[in-house]
Amino acid sequence: MANPSTYYLVTGGAGFIGSHLIDLLLADPATKEVRVLDNFSSGRQEHLAHHEHDPRLKIHTVELLELDKVVPHFLGVDQVFHLAANPDARWGIENTRLDLEQETIVTYNVLEAMRRQKVPRIVFSSSGTVYGDVGTTVTHEKLGPALPVSLYGAGKVASEGLISAFCATFGLRAIIFRFGNIVGERTTHGVMYDFIRQLAKNPADLKVLGNGHQAKPYVYVRDLAAGLMFGQERCRALPPSQFDVFNLAPDGATSVRFIATELLRQLGFSDRTKIHYGEATQGWPGDVAQSRMDSSKLRAAGFPIPRSSDEAVSFALSQILQWLSGRTSQLDDLRLPR
Amino acid sequence: MANPSTYYLVTGGAGFIGSHLIDLLLADPATKEVRVLDNFSSGRQEHLAHHEHDPRLKIHTVELLELDKVVPHFLGVDQVFHLAANPDARWGIENTRLDLEQETIVTYNVLEAMRRQKVPRIVFSSSGTVYGDVGTTVTHEKLGPALPVSLYGAGKVASEGLISAFCATFGLRAIIFRFGNIVGERTTHGVMYDFIRQLAKNPADLKVLGNGHQAKPYVYVRDLAAGLMFGQERCRALPPSQFDVFNLAPDGATSVRFIATELLRQLGFSDRTKIHYGEATQGWPGDVAQSRMDSSKLRAAGFPIPRSSDEAVSFALSQILQWLSGRTSQLDDLRLPR
Repeated sequence: MANPSTYYLVTGGAGFIGSHLIDLLLADPATKEVRVLDNFSSGRQEHLAHHEHDPRLKIHTVELLELDKVVPHFLGVDQVFHLAANPDARWGIENTRLDLEQETIVTYNVLEAMRRQKVPRIVFSSSGTVYGDVGTTVTHEKLGPALPVSLYGAGKVASEGLISAFCATFGLRAIIFRFGNIVGERTTHGVMYDFIRQLAKNPADLKVLGNGHQAKPYVYVRDLAAGLMFGQERCRALPPSQFDVFNLAPDGATSVRFIATELLRQLGFSDRTKIHYGEATQGWPGDVAQSRMDSSKLRAAGFPIPRSSDEAVSFALSQILQWLSGRTSQLDDLRLPR
Repeated sequence: MANPSTYYLVTGGAGFIGSHLIDLLLADPATKEVRVLDNFSSGRQEHLAHHEHDPRLKIHTVELLELDKVVPHFLGVDQVFHLAANPDARWGIENTRLDLEQETIVTYNVLEAMRRQKVPRIVFSSSGTVYGDVGTTVTHEKLGPALPVSLYGAGKVASEGLISAFCATFGLRAIIFRFGNIVGERTTHGVMYDFIRQLAKNPADLKVLGNGHQAKPYVYVRDLAAGLMFGQERCRALPPSQFDVFNLAPDGATSVRFIATELLRQLGFSDRTKIHYGEATQGWPGDVAQSRMDSSKLRAAGFPIPRSSDEAVSFALSQILQWLSGRTSQLDDLRLPR
């Protein structure tokens, strides 16, 4: 389906997911403008540097917590992708206010800016964490949101509730995606990043948080960005005040043990590195150790996720290693020994 | 079950629900102290005036949005009842930030204060609005929270998520009650209050928002306060990090038409007042016009709600009218003609 000419606004557009989405948006000739709002706390200019000659890309350094500074940027926008968030669920344990601000209050500000500027549509990046800790139960959209075990998940639940309420009360339209774990190049956190960091410092030992049997579904980030593009088409087709929710994760799950082993295999480190597993079933307090998601609703709507979870992990690792091998800037500390 | 000696803290303790709860807490000789934190936006000193000679009651005027001022009050507390909130779901339409602040951020502050002062237990007043607008579907606890249609409901969903996350991450214990509509003396808003206000100004006409077929379950406020007392016993029995959720509403539902007719009957106005119904099925945008709740879980746990919804409405009307007839202060404008 061809998109009509569209003005986009992407919060967190310089981040891990956002920058891949922007690659797709700018590849579409119908795109009139892509406005990026990012506070560059985890976003990076270099993720968008390859678009520096595209006049349709406008990058604004904005703290989304400041409503009055946010609102003017929403003038004339057709479609919002709200991706800005605290990228790591673990950070909420140390700073309990982080997710309240960077998830809940920021989402409120985005919705309020949309209401004031009459922006009709939003695609939102939620997470399977909204289902709470339900073990290996396969979660489908009707199950939730439920009661989350991390402050990160609480921020996603709060954001979904706000979107739902703004749609019903003020006529917005929304697509909410609940993602599995996202992996790929330009990552700034997560298990792969942690492992590679460790090996860059000391290739002899790899320490795993928890017993390594934690298993979740993983999505490759470019597949996810394609899902976001599909989401905005669905969003355009919604009647006012309506929203819809889709899981976006492959069937099944990949264990942390698989990730560790596969990383060592791709690096040729299998005989060089000793993996040290912990004893806990959970990586940290608030970690959901097991997660399985049912994306049949999204598949039936017309977006099949192209890779299995294990395939996504293997492919993402190869892409990350290739990406890192070409780096010379602030990621120098991630250069791996050869 | 006798309570052990306990230090209580009640947010919103001077409000409609809070003041009835405090009557019960102070009636228990095991109560060592009841600390009330209230910003007196809708709470009133007079609701607690009959306890002014009880040294166990400590009333503090506190804005719960200011975390640093809140935290010291939580020192030495055993059990929190968090009742402070925006009392009227309609207010969120005009001021979209109200519920974010008075529900979500305030609940975060309460939980963070508990974490810092090592307060182990909280009973929270949530609402059936967390189930969203599901028509006459009878909601049970496993259904939700779902996706709410009002900003008020979004604030309750966000608060439940925060409580769940703080329990899992920091070891708190919680009981969450999802209330039906609460009615009784000391009310400061809601359909009965609206109707009585109208009749005080003009007994000839009563205007109903919507077609009057809106129907929800109503709980009499003193029955609800007894439920809160039951809740704190359950809360004490929970292991650390655990929470439980209970609906608290009678079976069935009472229509707005019943409330209007019953009020006129009790006033002797049935032949004097003309009722004017609107046409909408909803009272206002974000209103959940139909709601039915299943409280069998609470009943099975040992707390049967003593009145049906219609009985609660009739009894509450009689109590409100008796309460108003004795008033001379700021409620003078609510004095009804005779």
